[in-house]
Amino acid sequence: MTVFDRIVAACRAAAENPSLVQCLTNPVVPEITANVLLACGHSPAMCDNTHEAVQFLGLADCALINLGNPTGDQLQAMELVADKAHATGTPWVLDPVAVGPLDYRTATATRLLSYQPTAIRGNASEIAALAGAGSGGRGVDSTDTPEAVADVAGELARRTGSIVAVTGPQDWIIGPDETLLVTGGHPLMQQVVGTGCSLGALVAAYLGSARTAGIAAVDAVAAAHAHSAAAGTMAAQQASRPASFKTAWVDWLFELSPEQIAATATTTVAGQ
Amino acid sequence: MTVFDRIVAACRAAAENPSLVQCLTNPVVPEITANVLLACGHSPAMCDNTHEAVQFLGLADCALINLGNPTGDQLQAMELVADKAHATGTPWVLDPVAVGPLDYRTATATRLLSYQPTAIRGNASEIAALAGAGSGGRGVDSTDTPEAVADVAGELARRTGSIVAVTGPQDWIIGPDETLLVTGGHPLMQQVVGTGCSLGALVAAYLGSARTAGIAAVDAVAAAHAHSAAAGTMAAQQASRPASFKTAWVDWLFELSPEQIAATATTTVAGQ
Amino acid sequence: MTVFDRIVAACRAAAENPSLVQCLTNPVVPEITANVLLACGHSPAMCDNTHEAVQFLGLADCALINLGNPTGDQLQAMELVADKAHATGTPWVLDPVAVGPLDYRTATATRLLSYQPTAIRGNASEIAALAGAGSGGRGVDSTDTPEAVADVAGELARRTGSIVAVTGPQDWIIGPDETLLVTGGHPLMQQVVGTGCSLGALVAAYLGSARTAGIAAVDAVAAAHAHSAAAGTMAAQQASRPASFKTAWVDWLFELSPEQIAATATTTVAGQ
Repeated sequence: MTVFDRIVAACRAAAENPSLVQCLTNPVVPEITANVLLACGHSPAMCDNTHEAVQFLGLADCALINLGNPTGDQLQAMELVADKAHATGTPWVLDPVAVGPLDYRTATATRLLSYQPTAIRGNASEIAALAGAGSGGRGVDSTDTPEAVADVAGELARRTGSIVAVTGPQDWIIGPDETLLVTGGHPLMQQVVGTGCSLGALVAAYLGSARTAGIAAVDAVAAAHAHSAAAGTMAAQQASRPASFKTAWVDWLFELSPEQIAATATTTVAGQ
Repeated sequence: MTVFDRIVAACRAAAENPSLVQCLTNPVVPEITANVLLACGHSPAMCDNTHEAVQFLGLADCALINLGNPTGDQLQAMELVADKAHATGTPWVLDPVAVGPLDYRTATATRLLSYQPTAIRGNASEIAALAGAGSGGRGVDSTDTPEAVADVAGELARRTGSIVAVTGPQDWIIGPDETLLVTGGHPLMQQVVGTGCSLGALVAAYLGSARTAGIAAVDAVAAAHAHSAAAGTMAAQQASRPASFKTAWVDWLFELSPEQIAATATTTVAGQ
Repeated sequence: MTVFDRIVAACRAAAENPSLVQCLTNPVVPEITANVLLACGHSPAMCDNTHEAVQFLGLADCALINLGNPTGDQLQAMELVADKAHATGTPWVLDPVAVGPLDYRTATATRLLSYQPTAIRGNASEIAALAGAGSGGRGVDSTDTPEAVADVAGELARRTGSIVAVTGPQDWIIGPDETLLVTGGHPLMQQVVGTGCSLGALVAAYLGSARTAGIAAVDAVAAAHAHSAAAGTMAAQQASRPASFKTAWVDWLFELSPEQIAATATTTVAGQ
């Protein structure tokens, strides 16, 4: 199967097997994250309190843990959910927002790695810091490129067994056997908060759907990135300012067919 | 007075007597909830911390308690506010989000019923579960229709003295003496997070205004549903994708006159 | 230098020296606040948990403390951040949302004054209440005008050493040596939640940039108000309903040049 066909198949699996996605995320992005998941046909549930989070995971197809601003109660729920997801084989995604410059967060992310996230999604500085090879970016902004951290990201993937997705101008999706490169999107995505955080949730959704449909996890992670990037490419043809762009991006997430996604964002195998 | 005239009168009362609405809601929807209330001329205040919530209720015209993700401190504030609202006769609305599949939340909602909410608003699965006659939906999504749960919803209304509003393709508003059916809206509303949660806040606002103006509570609840549904109908004529639809929906909430609301969403008395 | 040239210079300094802004704000507005900062070229970081907030301030150029719904953990982080900002000379802004009618919040705001905020931004009722000369507004809505509270606001400025910005139809920016009046904006800004709260964050950003560039703080505060107001003026030419207006406002925040800002919102020296 060509890479194009693999992306189409992963997108179709996500469309036909919508996921109920449990999101434990930061307080800036729950609304955009929920709207992104809904636009793509999935169901969001931001259930992250300690009374309910573990029971909810029993209903969910997958989970996202985003470290954007971890507080006491939510952090405890994160550990419980990661533990149960690991024990039950439920796909889950770790988004190590701003890991590196903040000691507490870096220690937290490192501890969560022991629950073997199905995928880790972050920008280059975050991935490098999580891999122990960098001091992180400036707040939530990356000061590295995916290419520059590809080696340490690959080592992180091998060590954890996770698929490691490094988001940037070109996204690097490092799987167990190959690395996929997704090209697309638009710089305006950096000027809308939550495009990256909601991509983490979309990766979880695609992994949930892929598990049901028997799609390879690396294809699901790449297809989620292609979906987001393709919508960004289309939105930029329609809007040149950030708030209009945000509306257009979510609209295109809803509108694009699997074939359009694969055709608009180009996915290739690294080294080929 | 015809049902049409009753809806117009309730909408006019809401427009002429704007409410200060205290919202204790989940962390996904405060912004859209506030913008919906502002678009409809009311004033939102998301004051839900234990230090201030009770004092704030003394200033507010009405309150919303939405169980979308109850945490320790907020949950305590919810009980204190429900208790004081009950004691002072301040209208308040209970939105039992995702009640059913989650034990803790179901127990919480059941306990809050003892403070006799003026209205209970939810989807069919939530209402059935709260009435003790169903196991709830899939996360926040309903797996029932309002028609299918009308009997148990009616029993819940009689037992609690609350107006029970079951939101769906057709909304069932069950009052003490009659049931009103509101038809309107659009399926795209399901693909924008917070349309239901903010409707709960709008029901509270309408109840606050109705109390000032001497409008029957059942009319106020139906009129709030008609306002939301009519804006959905109008928005769908303008936008076919979810993010554009969201913008159009809030714009139409702002724009519609009482007569336009009553004419765009049809309200009838059940059984007539 | 004319006032026009001073505003242009402050806007240019903000554009050329983007700030990393640490926001400790209420749960209704983090997304719009982040999008406003991003649209204006700055970097938001809503880091407000007690484990990380102080360490993060070491990375940030400035901070915002907004009292919209202070809870236990966040409130502790606010005190720690204000204390460190004061000790290190990092510019910080206090936004005393709804101070006045709520005892706990009023006491909290008064206590935070001891850390000498670089600027205080609020509506007229909030500023009067913080100055001890009013009982505050109705919830978050002002029941006073900036003109009416100018004297007590001036006294607050002298007592605290803070620049006091009173937002209204005309904004009063009270500096140590002069008062600047900014005229612009549009009433629709009142029907979009977070336009005021995100202005507080933008004031912090401008102060951070001004410190780097050697711009007077009073010019920075006025320029932030002019930036927001000018975008409101432009947005109102494009949209007459609140959700469309919100999109247009953020788009114009992104689009306007320093010269356009200074030309669209008029800034004058009071008494001249």
